[in-house]
Amino acid sequence: MFLSKLMPLDDAQKIINTFTESTDVEEISLEEAYQRVNAQEIISTLNSPPFDRSAMDGYALLAEDSFGHSETNPFQLKVMDRIGAGQKSDLKLKPGEAIKISTGAPIPSGANAVVMEEFTHEEGDIIHVETSLTPGENVSPAGEDFNKGDTVLEKGKLLGPAELAIIASAGFDHVSVYKKPRIAVLITGSELVMPKKDLEGAEIINSNHFTIKSMVESCMAVPEMFHSIDDAQLVEERFNELLKDYDTLITTGGTAISKGDVVVDVAQKLGEVHVHGVSLRPGKPFGFAQVQGKPVFMLSGFPVAAMVQFDVFAREALLKMQGFKRNPLLVHKKAARKIASTLGRTDYIRARMEGEMVHPLKIKGSGIIRSMVESDSYIIIPENLEGIEEGDQCQILPYHSLKA
Amino acid sequence: MFLSKLMPLDDAQKIINTFTESTDVEEISLEEAYQRVNAQEIISTLNSPPFDRSAMDGYALLAEDSFGHSETNPFQLKVMDRIGAGQKSDLKLKPGEAIKISTGAPIPSGANAVVMEEFTHEEGDIIHVETSLTPGENVSPAGEDFNKGDTVLEKGKLLGPAELAIIASAGFDHVSVYKKPRIAVLITGSELVMPKKDLEGAEIINSNHFTIKSMVESCMAVPEMFHSIDDAQLVEERFNELLKDYDTLITTGGTAISKGDVVVDVAQKLGEVHVHGVSLRPGKPFGFAQVQGKPVFMLSGFPVAAMVQFDVFAREALLKMQGFKRNPLLVHKKAARKIASTLGRTDYIRARMEGEMVHPLKIKGSGIIRSMVESDSYIIIPENLEGIEEGDQCQILPYHSLKA
Repeated sequence: MFLSKLMPLDDAQKIINTFTESTDVEEISLEEAYQRVNAQEIISTLNSPPFDRSAMDGYALLAEDSFGHSETNPFQLKVMDRIGAGQKSDLKLKPGEAIKISTGAPIPSGANAVVMEEFTHEEGDIIHVETSLTPGENVSPAGEDFNKGDTVLEKGKLLGPAELAIIASAGFDHVSVYKKPRIAVLITGSELVMPKKDLEGAEIINSNHFTIKSMVESCMAVPEMFHSIDDAQLVEERFNELLKDYDTLITTGGTAISKGDVVVDVAQKLGEVHVHGVSLRPGKPFGFAQVQGKPVFMLSGFPVAAMVQFDVFAREALLKMQGFKRNPLLVHKKAARKIASTLGRTDYIRARMEGEMVHPLKIKGSGIIRSMVESDSYIIIPENLEGIEEGDQCQILPYHSLKA
Repeated sequence: MFLSKLMPLDDAQKIINTFTESTDVEEISLEEAYQRVNAQEIISTLNSPPFDRSAMDGYALLAEDSFGHSETNPFQLKVMDRIGAGQKSDLKLKPGEAIKISTGAPIPSGANAVVMEEFTHEEGDIIHVETSLTPGENVSPAGEDFNKGDTVLEKGKLLGPAELAIIASAGFDHVSVYKKPRIAVLITGSELVMPKKDLEGAEIINSNHFTIKSMVESCMAVPEMFHSIDDAQLVEERFNELLKDYDTLITTGGTAISKGDVVVDVAQKLGEVHVHGVSLRPGKPFGFAQVQGKPVFMLSGFPVAAMVQFDVFAREALLKMQGFKRNPLLVHKKAARKIASTLGRTDYIRARMEGEMVHPLKIKGSGIIRSMVESDSYIIIPENLEGIEEGDQCQILPYHSLKA
């Protein structure tokens, strides 16, 4: 039997933080690296671009040849060569000469500007140029983006389209990333069954199976799902097995605070319970333990409470294991009605954003899944506020910003 | 040779919209349905919860027995049965009787309230109750969440943790979803090579390979990557092959506006080019065509321009093909400095958010990948503004909110 005072969120988060470590590093192909987190800074092996290149389709020339010229005072150049993208001219350009060039091709030796095709017309090997250019015009200089030896990406970045592009451009087709943590999810509850159309007796559909699985996936971690009836012996066996094989254990159910409850009791027996009961609504009956040196997140069996607890405690921890730290985007909107809270407790109120307003849902109850489907965000009422008046600016956490 | 006036964004988006259709529907296991889009509304086959159930661990009783009682005036009940979660009592409760009950278990016949365990103490088969209860207290009534026949989810929803939970609770272990569109990505450019540490001659690393691939993945679609040199004949062959096998073609390169360019010319030859050149910066040289009845998005070869074009034109189209319509979350922040623009042109300025401020990056050039890595959002300057003054509220599109 484990009893405790409700713990403030910050304290619980700090404790969890001290017990979560990053996973091992593995090297993978850049082709597979989208939505992974790089475990090493990227130092470029190349200049990018690797040479002065043309930013336009046109003619490479000496800017000095064009000085003082215009549409009404054109000048002529002799076209010495024609190079497409991927080609390079070996000629050295002299005054009075031009080389036809495609976007991306290396600026020929001797040239220092590119005139766009539309400011010219060609007659045989001669072009008439109807504009003047400054040296460097329409030229992307070598190393404009970055140089060999530059750190182009810090470690711990979530690899998105731009990050993959810069790693590639730095010369790498492989990248070191943190391994995806393997998460055992143990859903407890004798009444729980998988979805079916005819329920019997006291059966309830195991919706947490789907919520927690997909929430783990939304943290880029790999869930494996298990179920146990409410039996201390069986739950204990499961703990021992799963903590041997997985990086982390997440449970649902058996976390009641007022008395001993199956899951928290097992965690206390096998390891150490560091958090049990937090001043969060919904989500008070949350537990965190370290067992066999591994973190165990004990969520409520109530679907909505479990989701909030996951978002508040497990989500950032699973990302941290992958070397990724971030601050989810908070927005501010006006409360469409008054919301009561209690000093010392943090509330996560399901809400719906609409323009500059946010509407707290009226549906209460930590079992009401519909309230999660109909909302798109949490209004967070921090513990130092007694509530929010109608029209007050409040802090909103859009569900979308929770996903990594 | 294909020439055109620059088209406003809205017009181009409307045209694209008329040429994109949703994919076929398939039925998949709910286990696999995270981040898919449901193609049918979900009508519950069950009440949820399916019976009146206990919201607490405690004793089921008749509230009427408790009226007028309190800590200083307790009363006694006889415990007739004990039921855990997943169990059901066949007894019918009479006045003076109680049944020990776990959270989630069905309320026994005759009972109408549950007293929490901490307001009682047990002596053998007798409990002393030190509080009074109202009828319904600590009882979650059947159908509190939803009832059989209720529409619990509209079609076209992105299936996240809450949506999966409600589909399961409605009795379904399978769900109809839109197929993931298969996207052929054809990167053109004779100069492009895969990442390596020693570049020769005019070689440039094909960073678009990684950007466009991962951007397609971020839209929940399935990319297949191809490359072609800048040769009209070869590009035409690729168009013909790929449009036979894939739902959509996305190309990069060969979209210059001032003159004929390989990719747009091929699209014009094989089908119809509906958009070529948009008043967008960066990203002006964008093309959209319909070829063999399929949409073709022609992006610039410049990495940053291609990313912006994808975000503005391709992203929502790929989601729409999967039956998903959404409005990415826009936020508003104060510009840290003045930003110039031009009437009639939409600007997507790479920027970094910081508290209530947003900092436009100083890096220009549509080839500068570093600017995408260092920014976390676009400042959007709509076509009816000539720019933004320092301190003005401006419209921000966080990159994070682009991901589905």
